[in-house]
Amino acid sequence: MMSKMVNLNADLGESFGPWPMGRDDDMLALVNSANVACGFHAGDPAVMRRTVALAAKHGVSIGAHPAFPDLQGFGRRRMDIAEPELEAMLIYQIGALAAIARAEGTRVTHVKPHGALNNMACVDASLARCIARAVRAADPALMLLAPVLSQLAVAGEEAGLGVIGEVFADRAYADDGTLVPRSQPGAVLHGADDCVRHVMRMAETGALHSVNGRQLPARIQSICVHGDNPQAVATARAVGDALRAAGWRLVPLPELHAA
Amino acid sequence: MMSKMVNLNADLGESFGPWPMGRDDDMLALVNSANVACGFHAGDPAVMRRTVALAAKHGVSIGAHPAFPDLQGFGRRRMDIAEPELEAMLIYQIGALAAIARAEGTRVTHVKPHGALNNMACVDASLARCIARAVRAADPALMLLAPVLSQLAVAGEEAGLGVIGEVFADRAYADDGTLVPRSQPGAVLHGADDCVRHVMRMAETGALHSVNGRQLPARIQSICVHGDNPQAVATARAVGDALRAAGWRLVPLPELHAA
Amino acid sequence: MMSKMVNLNADLGESFGPWPMGRDDDMLALVNSANVACGFHAGDPAVMRRTVALAAKHGVSIGAHPAFPDLQGFGRRRMDIAEPELEAMLIYQIGALAAIARAEGTRVTHVKPHGALNNMACVDASLARCIARAVRAADPALMLLAPVLSQLAVAGEEAGLGVIGEVFADRAYADDGTLVPRSQPGAVLHGADDCVRHVMRMAETGALHSVNGRQLPARIQSICVHGDNPQAVATARAVGDALRAAGWRLVPLPELHAA
Amino acid sequence: MMSKMVNLNADLGESFGPWPMGRDDDMLALVNSANVACGFHAGDPAVMRRTVALAAKHGVSIGAHPAFPDLQGFGRRRMDIAEPELEAMLIYQIGALAAIARAEGTRVTHVKPHGALNNMACVDASLARCIARAVRAADPALMLLAPVLSQLAVAGEEAGLGVIGEVFADRAYADDGTLVPRSQPGAVLHGADDCVRHVMRMAETGALHSVNGRQLPARIQSICVHGDNPQAVATARAVGDALRAAGWRLVPLPELHAA
Repeated sequence: MMSKMVNLNADLGESFGPWPMGRDDDMLALVNSANVACGFHAGDPAVMRRTVALAAKHGVSIGAHPAFPDLQGFGRRRMDIAEPELEAMLIYQIGALAAIARAEGTRVTHVKPHGALNNMACVDASLARCIARAVRAADPALMLLAPVLSQLAVAGEEAGLGVIGEVFADRAYADDGTLVPRSQPGAVLHGADDCVRHVMRMAETGALHSVNGRQLPARIQSICVHGDNPQAVATARAVGDALRAAGWRLVPLPELHAA
Repeated sequence: MMSKMVNLNADLGESFGPWPMGRDDDMLALVNSANVACGFHAGDPAVMRRTVALAAKHGVSIGAHPAFPDLQGFGRRRMDIAEPELEAMLIYQIGALAAIARAEGTRVTHVKPHGALNNMACVDASLARCIARAVRAADPALMLLAPVLSQLAVAGEEAGLGVIGEVFADRAYADDGTLVPRSQPGAVLHGADDCVRHVMRMAETGALHSVNGRQLPARIQSICVHGDNPQAVATARAVGDALRAAGWRLVPLPELHAA
Repeated sequence: MMSKMVNLNADLGESFGPWPMGRDDDMLALVNSANVACGFHAGDPAVMRRTVALAAKHGVSIGAHPAFPDLQGFGRRRMDIAEPELEAMLIYQIGALAAIARAEGTRVTHVKPHGALNNMACVDASLARCIARAVRAADPALMLLAPVLSQLAVAGEEAGLGVIGEVFADRAYADDGTLVPRSQPGAVLHGADDCVRHVMRMAETGALHSVNGRQLPARIQSICVHGDNPQAVATARAVGDALRAAGWRLVPLPELHAA
Repeated sequence: MMSKMVNLNADLGESFGPWPMGRDDDMLALVNSANVACGFHAGDPAVMRRTVALAAKHGVSIGAHPAFPDLQGFGRRRMDIAEPELEAMLIYQIGALAAIARAEGTRVTHVKPHGALNNMACVDASLARCIARAVRAADPALMLLAPVLSQLAVAGEEAGLGVIGEVFADRAYADDGTLVPRSQPGAVLHGADDCVRHVMRMAETGALHSVNGRQLPARIQSICVHGDNPQAVATARAVGDALRAAGWRLVPLPELHAA
């Protein structure tokens, strides 16, 4: 009998020049897939190369994490970019990482948009389709890692991409399946226990559970964890341990997709 | 009997955002290979995509034209970048263009470093090897377009890359085969007639002819022409016409390399 | 008897690095005030210095033209930047130009936001107040050049700044006093005759005239003209000539403000 | 009887966007003058404003810390920039910080070049004069904080600027008064004890002491300390304590200069 499979992913390679960020070393021992910043919101070519090499060493599958061109704002500011320009920017970032992966004897297997771009694409169907077009144009074999129940997931399916449904270990969901905005109380779960409970409930029921108790069935395949501080790393570890204890097998995205 | 073959190349795609540069439309009808700016000294993802699409339409082969990260200085300022960082930057730029080419149904077949990076690599063997490593890491099938008799050409050969020897239609050569610095009188040839004479002499003799009349045998396979103003375009056209009239067949780099 | 006074302003100093833009030399002979790009959407320190020196030579008063940090998008893309960050960015840009003006023996006397920032501030009162705060913090003696009937003008008045009401020579107005979006037909007036008619009607009646014939009384003190091509320069000249012929005295902003 | 006076300075405000750097809070309680990054190698407008406000609160005098335009390389890469362009870049940075200081009710009183620019200007008289010209053009009342015995100090004197002679608490000196390159053993002193001994010897003798025991008389007025980690902060504190214990009064640069 085949065991249940799930993926843990994290945003990594977010250092830039002289500025370190995140506990990439710790996280690469815990997650199965890494979303690697491509230089537009974080990361630089040297950081990208180091991150990719380290991921390969840990057997962690590699994704491009493209963003708006906004280093100072870390890609978290909404920008109004014409779609043809944005599409080209995304292909650019994906290709840059792909060549770096190739230089390290490995390859990019998925794409996950970053920050404001991801948030906007969850509800803006046209933007979502622009992203899907870019991924397909860069390489139709790339998977798209997209929040479950989002317009981005829909656009990816329509474009014929392999879409992986993602949930966040530390974020509360509204009744419509969107994230509760960070500005609202309870938007972010703190502490390993709460995150583990949140994740296990979603994984076991195959559904989002909103802050108001609504259950939204969803194909949950990957769980995003953070690792920007020791506490976050501990939470990521606890989430992985809990999943394994409950019989889930944690696998990189290509293995999950192939299944 | 096989005709003699040679290649005309030009640096294109040097517009950026709202700022146009060069007569790319005109030039793509004249040259066989385009060195496309990759966003570090000029070009942006949208410009790159437009340039690549246009080149493909004209049957012009596409090269990556990576540079130091210096948009304001147009990549013409010398920078002292640690080799591992520079190597990663070059792979990044090559990969970005490769993905954009793929999105347009075509591919990148060569690399030519830009500006100060190219000048420095002509005489700095260590830097030249760094560039060759980057090209090889990005894709060992890429050709390296390098000035004849340069350290860059040597490094490319040593790295096992296909190296194409380049001369400039409008630049005078010193006795050691380097370019006469722009600061010196006579460094730049003006007018179509002088450039045609310069090119034909080099092509027919298979040698650089220095300002002092020295002849330096060299494997001249590609001629770099400029197209940043109507006069330059006319010169480029005249050079191509003269070569064809003398029995040379003008071909894209892959065809030249395969021969 | 005092003659009627009005100001002609233009956005200048929009070259960047190797990329020229605009006919600054021609325009500085025609306008009374220059809005000088500050490096975030266009301009670089060398361009800024050259522009400021040339403006001073022509007796043209100098304004800072700060923008969103978006060189590739030329400051025309909407960005969602937290107000404290934006305020600091504006002070930064104004100060940079102020020091360059001082180095050239002159000074900055007004501020005009650029592109998307200006458009957004015309209708977003909170953003408009952020801009007014920045101008006041940089130097309370600075005038704010703001579209007539805009939230930006209101915010400037409330902040105690000297506000100069601006209209555009080549843009049609909607019934609410906002610009007709460029995406709509008739948004942009072409040709010197139409622009002259448009400007003279507004100047003589002291009112905007909307595309639907509505008249909106407004304190029109400055007219923005463009100079990015020979035709635009001719239009700017025609507008100035027509105003003078009708008895208007064209003056720099400080003189207008002092009156 | 007037007590001996000396100044402690540190490079601060080196965070950027989402990336923190340094222990600015701790350091501002220890030093008398802060060299604030101006956005070209580190810092951004919001960081600059926060740093300036905090410095003012602590009675720490504020200096501009301009650099080459190289965020990723943290201004540590040598760049070959034409002097008129560099001069404009420096004025730009100084002015940007000056306006931010004004917005916080304080002012910039000195300039200290950063990183590779500083290192190059210590031995390149032409570059040093370019920097001095820029400082003078921005505001002739600004002091120049320059390494003792450097070309930069000479150029500042020649330009009529107030020059403050600086030594480094944790760097060894060569026989010619230049810093021992970081690549050589013993270039950097580690631990509070060694740094205190180094500083006290220089302060008490009024001379640099080279690694080979040579003594180079110099007008030592300010001591640069670092604060990028808890150990560095402890060293900075120890240096200040030792100076005070030996009867030195630690003062901001304007007070030192006025004396």
